[in-house]
Amino acid sequence: MNNHAQLLKEYEEYKSMGLKLDMTRGKPSKEQLDIMEELLGVLSKKEDCISDGIDCRNYGILDGIPAAKRIFSDILGIPTEKIIVGGNSSLNLMYDTVARAMLSGVAGSDKPWSKHGKISFLCPVPGYDRHFAICQYFGIHMIKVPMTPEGPDMDLVEKLVGEDDTIKGIWCVPKYANPTGITYSAETVRRFAALKPKAKDFRVFWDNAYAIHDLTDTPDRLDDILSIAAEYGSEDMFFEFTSTSKISFPGSGLAAIASSEKNIKRITKELAYQTIGFDKLNQLRHAKLFPDKAAIMNHMARHRALIKPKFDAVIEEFDRQGIEELQGVSFTRPNGGYFISLDLPDGCAKRLVKLASDAGLALTSAGATFPYGMDPHDSNIRIAPTFPPLEDIKTAAKVLCCCIKLVVCEREEAGKQGNGIL
Amino acid sequence: MNNHAQLLKEYEEYKSMGLKLDMTRGKPSKEQLDIMEELLGVLSKKEDCISDGIDCRNYGILDGIPAAKRIFSDILGIPTEKIIVGGNSSLNLMYDTVARAMLSGVAGSDKPWSKHGKISFLCPVPGYDRHFAICQYFGIHMIKVPMTPEGPDMDLVEKLVGEDDTIKGIWCVPKYANPTGITYSAETVRRFAALKPKAKDFRVFWDNAYAIHDLTDTPDRLDDILSIAAEYGSEDMFFEFTSTSKISFPGSGLAAIASSEKNIKRITKELAYQTIGFDKLNQLRHAKLFPDKAAIMNHMARHRALIKPKFDAVIEEFDRQGIEELQGVSFTRPNGGYFISLDLPDGCAKRLVKLASDAGLALTSAGATFPYGMDPHDSNIRIAPTFPPLEDIKTAAKVLCCCIKLVVCEREEAGKQGNGIL
Repeated sequence: MNNHAQLLKEYEEYKSMGLKLDMTRGKPSKEQLDIMEELLGVLSKKEDCISDGIDCRNYGILDGIPAAKRIFSDILGIPTEKIIVGGNSSLNLMYDTVARAMLSGVAGSDKPWSKHGKISFLCPVPGYDRHFAICQYFGIHMIKVPMTPEGPDMDLVEKLVGEDDTIKGIWCVPKYANPTGITYSAETVRRFAALKPKAKDFRVFWDNAYAIHDLTDTPDRLDDILSIAAEYGSEDMFFEFTSTSKISFPGSGLAAIASSEKNIKRITKELAYQTIGFDKLNQLRHAKLFPDKAAIMNHMARHRALIKPKFDAVIEEFDRQGIEELQGVSFTRPNGGYFISLDLPDGCAKRLVKLASDAGLALTSAGATFPYGMDPHDSNIRIAPTFPPLEDIKTAAKVLCCCIKLVVCEREEAGKQGNGIL
Repeated sequence: MNNHAQLLKEYEEYKSMGLKLDMTRGKPSKEQLDIMEELLGVLSKKEDCISDGIDCRNYGILDGIPAAKRIFSDILGIPTEKIIVGGNSSLNLMYDTVARAMLSGVAGSDKPWSKHGKISFLCPVPGYDRHFAICQYFGIHMIKVPMTPEGPDMDLVEKLVGEDDTIKGIWCVPKYANPTGITYSAETVRRFAALKPKAKDFRVFWDNAYAIHDLTDTPDRLDDILSIAAEYGSEDMFFEFTSTSKISFPGSGLAAIASSEKNIKRITKELAYQTIGFDKLNQLRHAKLFPDKAAIMNHMARHRALIKPKFDAVIEEFDRQGIEELQGVSFTRPNGGYFISLDLPDGCAKRLVKLASDAGLALTSAGATFPYGMDPHDSNIRIAPTFPPLEDIKTAAKVLCCCIKLVVCEREEAGKQGNGIL
């Protein structure tokens, strides 16, 4: 039996097992949610609801209670004056920030973004599908920028934003990037701070979603963009976002936006039209559970203990099966975040997702990591190992290896046949 | 001592008391928040977080958990299919609904509202300042429509929306309107359902904020706009909003939007770009506390027991002092809601607010109940008696009566002097 036949046999065996495995989204597991149980009951009496003299049950306070600002000050290393604490979704804060820019511009705009004929965003790829979806919703043209091991290709970023004033923004996940796991180098961060955009209302959407989501004892280090930007006088250019979605509860966490004090004042003023304020009781719940940075980091260590073995299970299986030695195949070994990024030979990603799906393993759609869901090389796959139980991950990794080998083998054979015919 | 001198003496006595009374906003009192204490601890264990098989802690579910939709189905008398449960702010849902219409139109639009040169909203007056502020933020022209005891002047509404296609919306508080306390009559509701707007993308923003906020045993009855609109095939024209802000906690309640199934589907699709979903744990907390309509209505009876004496204290003082007998002065005796609306002779409202403020009684700014904060007659004042303790309200009502009499007296004297000079 040749290699292809052998792989097909193995694949059919997995298929016959009736598996139902889901690695589609960067979703915390049940065990990760369980370790946050204490958050549920931390406010139980009416007296518990007062914080710094504020009755968190009633109306009032647009920009977040001081105790909640402190949590994000701890996470991001940024003073509380530069922080607004919002509701349960940093995606919503990002969407709102783009929506406000579309409808009324940003500080220094001569008109709202929507009044320009065409506007564009730079989109480092592979990247986060929800970022790209926001651009798609608002009709913002997306320009792909390749990722390097240090972050986005800054030569290209500098060139493009320096000469094209239709470019109003760029999406960044600067730490443990989704899906590559890359953390922007000190030089990359500095080059961002030093950007000289042609559009005066250009903004960097700095989605620091995985700021403290380390998986090793030697975590990556990301420099604080706001303090470096302050050196260059470019602080207004940055909107930084983060959340506790993968710290406390994904559906009931806290989200925050950080920026220059000027931007924060402007946003707070605009929020007064939008809402009566965010949920201060939930802000206070988090503040009680996370009184200081040590409390947060201790909690993150518990997450790591649950997640790390899942990442290891995938990577160890890949290594055991020599996946990296296959022609054109590579994968990331991230120090943090929620994803492993897998690159295949051109034209293999969709086929892999189909093969895996037929064998009962749901993967993120091929193309999801690119604007408009179109991967020009059809080669990148985002692997999300956090949600299923460890035993399932071990099985999933085996299925995945089999599918990778099969798709590479199919491709090689097609290549040979193609050569034969030509 | 003449009447004016007597009033001035009384006024100076109040002034010397160093009062600090606040009747500015429709804010529940501490006692009202205290009766909701049970909500805080109703979810305390991880097992509590599952509802209809949904783990409310994790990602997922855009339109609200079924158990929370049922609450609003009970409140509004509308099937759950026509309801989306959102976050903690119905104002935010209204803002978002206008923002989406501005950026991408509504079902049936040929283009987004923002792509029209000029668009307008009808604003029944006096009305709610936060509605008008949303129009102001988006640069939407506001056209005032007078309120009658049956609701907005429907002859005028029909005429205007029938002939002017720049009119894209109207703000309505159909039950216990802010600030007049008026509930739209059956005929008014039916005429809304039967509207034939020139603009195909005209929408009614039906802010049913006080749906079950009764103050008497003979509450007003508001017909269900969605079922009547269904008779006329105009269901898509209505966005209904409500919240538990004045049922549970103002800062940490639930808000909902109700509309035709077609609109609800469209909104849910658009929400997928905007957010990862609303806080399902808080939705579940409310569902546990309010398992059926009886539980909600029992709770509202407790609110009424706290609020009604405050309304009575103001109205009884007004009656005792013969306020209604003063030339050009009238006030409402609402069956529900959060406000008493006071009308004074033209040109007296700002002066009254100033007099009251100088005596330590903060009232809502004169003009706040009109678009752009401009009351053309300077005559309407919104009185919000819910927040201060009952004893304070009794004092406030006395101060208010003194100020009303003083301002009317000043005006009469100015009239006489004016006559004398001429």
